[in-house]
Amino acid sequence: MERRTGFFAPHAYLDGRHVRSAYVEVDERGIIVRTGAEIPADAPPHVVDLGRALLVPGFVDAHSHAFQRLIRGRTQRRGAHDPSSFWSWRTAMYDVAARLDPDAFEAAATLVFREMAAAGITCVGEFHYLHHGPDGTPYADPNEMSLRAVAAARAVGIRIVMLEVYYARAGAGRPPEGAQVRFCDGSVDAYLARIEALADAGAAVGIAPHSVRAVGRADLARLVSHARDRSLPLHIHLSEQPAENEACRAEHGTTPAGLLDELGAFDGCNTTCVHATFLDADDVARLGRARVCLCPTTEADLGDGLPPAGPLLAAGTRFCFGSDSNAIVDLVQEARLAEMGERLRTNRRLCLAAKGRTVAETLLDAATREGAAALGLAGTTGRLAAGEAFDACVVDLDDPMFAEVPDDALLDAWLLSGTAAPVRATYVGGERIH
Amino acid sequence: MERRTGFFAPHAYLDGRHVRSAYVEVDERGIIVRTGAEIPADAPPHVVDLGRALLVPGFVDAHSHAFQRLIRGRTQRRGAHDPSSFWSWRTAMYDVAARLDPDAFEAAATLVFREMAAAGITCVGEFHYLHHGPDGTPYADPNEMSLRAVAAARAVGIRIVMLEVYYARAGAGRPPEGAQVRFCDGSVDAYLARIEALADAGAAVGIAPHSVRAVGRADLARLVSHARDRSLPLHIHLSEQPAENEACRAEHGTTPAGLLDELGAFDGCNTTCVHATFLDADDVARLGRARVCLCPTTEADLGDGLPPAGPLLAAGTRFCFGSDSNAIVDLVQEARLAEMGERLRTNRRLCLAAKGRTVAETLLDAATREGAAALGLAGTTGRLAAGEAFDACVVDLDDPMFAEVPDDALLDAWLLSGTAAPVRATYVGGERIH
Repeated sequence: MERRTGFFAPHAYLDGRHVRSAYVEVDERGIIVRTGAEIPADAPPHVVDLGRALLVPGFVDAHSHAFQRLIRGRTQRRGAHDPSSFWSWRTAMYDVAARLDPDAFEAAATLVFREMAAAGITCVGEFHYLHHGPDGTPYADPNEMSLRAVAAARAVGIRIVMLEVYYARAGAGRPPEGAQVRFCDGSVDAYLARIEALADAGAAVGIAPHSVRAVGRADLARLVSHARDRSLPLHIHLSEQPAENEACRAEHGTTPAGLLDELGAFDGCNTTCVHATFLDADDVARLGRARVCLCPTTEADLGDGLPPAGPLLAAGTRFCFGSDSNAIVDLVQEARLAEMGERLRTNRRLCLAAKGRTVAETLLDAATREGAAALGLAGTTGRLAAGEAFDACVVDLDDPMFAEVPDDALLDAWLLSGTAAPVRATYVGGERIH
Repeated sequence: MERRTGFFAPHAYLDGRHVRSAYVEVDERGIIVRTGAEIPADAPPHVVDLGRALLVPGFVDAHSHAFQRLIRGRTQRRGAHDPSSFWSWRTAMYDVAARLDPDAFEAAATLVFREMAAAGITCVGEFHYLHHGPDGTPYADPNEMSLRAVAAARAVGIRIVMLEVYYARAGAGRPPEGAQVRFCDGSVDAYLARIEALADAGAAVGIAPHSVRAVGRADLARLVSHARDRSLPLHIHLSEQPAENEACRAEHGTTPAGLLDELGAFDGCNTTCVHATFLDADDVARLGRARVCLCPTTEADLGDGLPPAGPLLAAGTRFCFGSDSNAIVDLVQEARLAEMGERLRTNRRLCLAAKGRTVAETLLDAATREGAAALGLAGTTGRLAAGEAFDACVVDLDDPMFAEVPDDALLDAWLLSGTAAPVRATYVGGERIH
């Protein structure tokens, strides 16, 4: 930003509270320097009146596979792959994964990051495994593809954390197959060297063992230790399908969450488990010490199932959300369907309310502050509060969906009945990107 | 319309087929007179080029309670009613139902019908039970409230079928309670006289016994016979909650679907059962001879549960969709979530494809043609075909959600990843209403 700027809105979600009348002042670096209810006497000359709007923190999309945007609409009929389950969907997805070159990948990422900006998403965790050439040979720069994702995010203006996937095998005792050869660095050492170079190039990175299926115990142990030692976020797909659990029990004599617990992933480590669909009671207790990233639109699309979200919340789990396959790019829908899925699973209403919080507040916190924390950005983004970046989106309260909704129910109406469609402006670091 | 008009779009859903390049000609009465791929040499001088768009039949919302729009966002936190289940939600809804006067009801209906028009909905089945004054006394015209709904639809420009509810009791042996006194006509004779007067006033009507809970066996039998004899649509809430099934078994020794079957509702009668959530195998077979109206966003909001949609389809059930509580007004979401709910219930993909049809086609047919048939309007609206009204909506293919989606996947992408947000124009009888 060129100069200190104020923003005024009649409604805002300031540091976790819905307030009426909000002023937010942002400095030249795009950092919030103060907030209040009214425009102060010493406000800078430039104050943006946001009109009849609700100002909320920008959404943090904690789990995205940008390239999968290319198969939107392409796996929804019977035929070529008989895509009637998760596994046949994966075959269709691998067909695209196998053939993307860096230009096509960057174009796809740009497309999806633009949709994110339009949906009020200001930061994405890109769970990235398309590392190497189609036959597994690294590009001249082994971080070519990662850097393309970073370039796409920069072009659109959203923040990105590269959750760099480590991938080693098709399953216990089985070498990588087909498209999977692109995902593999060959060794943990090679992987760590690669992501160190990526961090040196200025990218924010996280450690992402793909799953307990794709990474053996010894490698997983090293990755957990590395994440803890370097204070890097650790992300892993977990228990998305019953077959994953069965294979893990056969190999390790415990569940995926049990294995992670044995390796210390839930102690002193910023660990986020993605999906967490098929859990037993012990798993729920373990994940009470972790974050879980729910991706409800993808989990429905792929026929995964409904996770035990209520019991997880009760156990202490902190939720965040991801657009995952990017068939849908809308964290309001992810949040709403997380709550709605739990209602359908339990035949109860108002399931995901944290202690002392409403359902809408709990969902909005998960979609913003908790997503940021999961990406290692706590204190940087995710809240409208002094000291954090002005990453925000502006919700149009003149949208017909809000007509006759009383002021104190605006947040409830939006989170439980809405979509991202009423987002009419998005800011990152004080700059308008949509 | 003042003159014969042609419409041209690069994509359309003409009589159940996605075609590229479509011309539709509409006469002065708003009736489609011919369709084709190109603008013919003898086209009228006025041809509307719809631009880069997909033209589809207008959606038919087969189950709406317009007034419930007023509680959008108001039942989403714990408190007053401890609304943690369907039944406590109902208490909150009754609070509003008890106090609405005709003006407030008409204003609410206008609001929701405007949202419907914006979402591409061109026809609504209003499942209407707010008949009489707050203490049960009829208004000077006993159809005052029904006529207000008709007036609201007319003001907005959408078609309406008044599914006039017959309501007699709180449950077996229990007189109506609280707000329910507004719903009651006192006798089937009084009810039939009232709706005959409503039809004479020009309204399209249907017979709607509220549920087997609220209507006893003898009354239900008369209503089924009347609907069959007069060829009127018959709509009824069915098996939305386990408690309804238990009470029905206690009273009648069978399930709600079993009772309807005994009374002949599935033979020679245009019967639509709304919800159909908790069914046994016999119920599924019975409903194979009926229509089922699914209302997935409401069924999730209220914590109902997931219906056995796949088995119903296999048994022969014809689906339609309703916005029901109108917390959400978007039949694309209803259609998508019907499919997604079945995926979540069964851990399979591509569940609701009728024989020889894709999932998207099956869902779109349900949301248009089948909804029209459920409202007694087969052949009048619901298809873009010669002889039917030009009731249509225009989907903007420049919406970013369609970027890079191949032409042959447009319908799949919209129905399985989309919402109604890309609808940019809506026509009823050839007139643009949005």
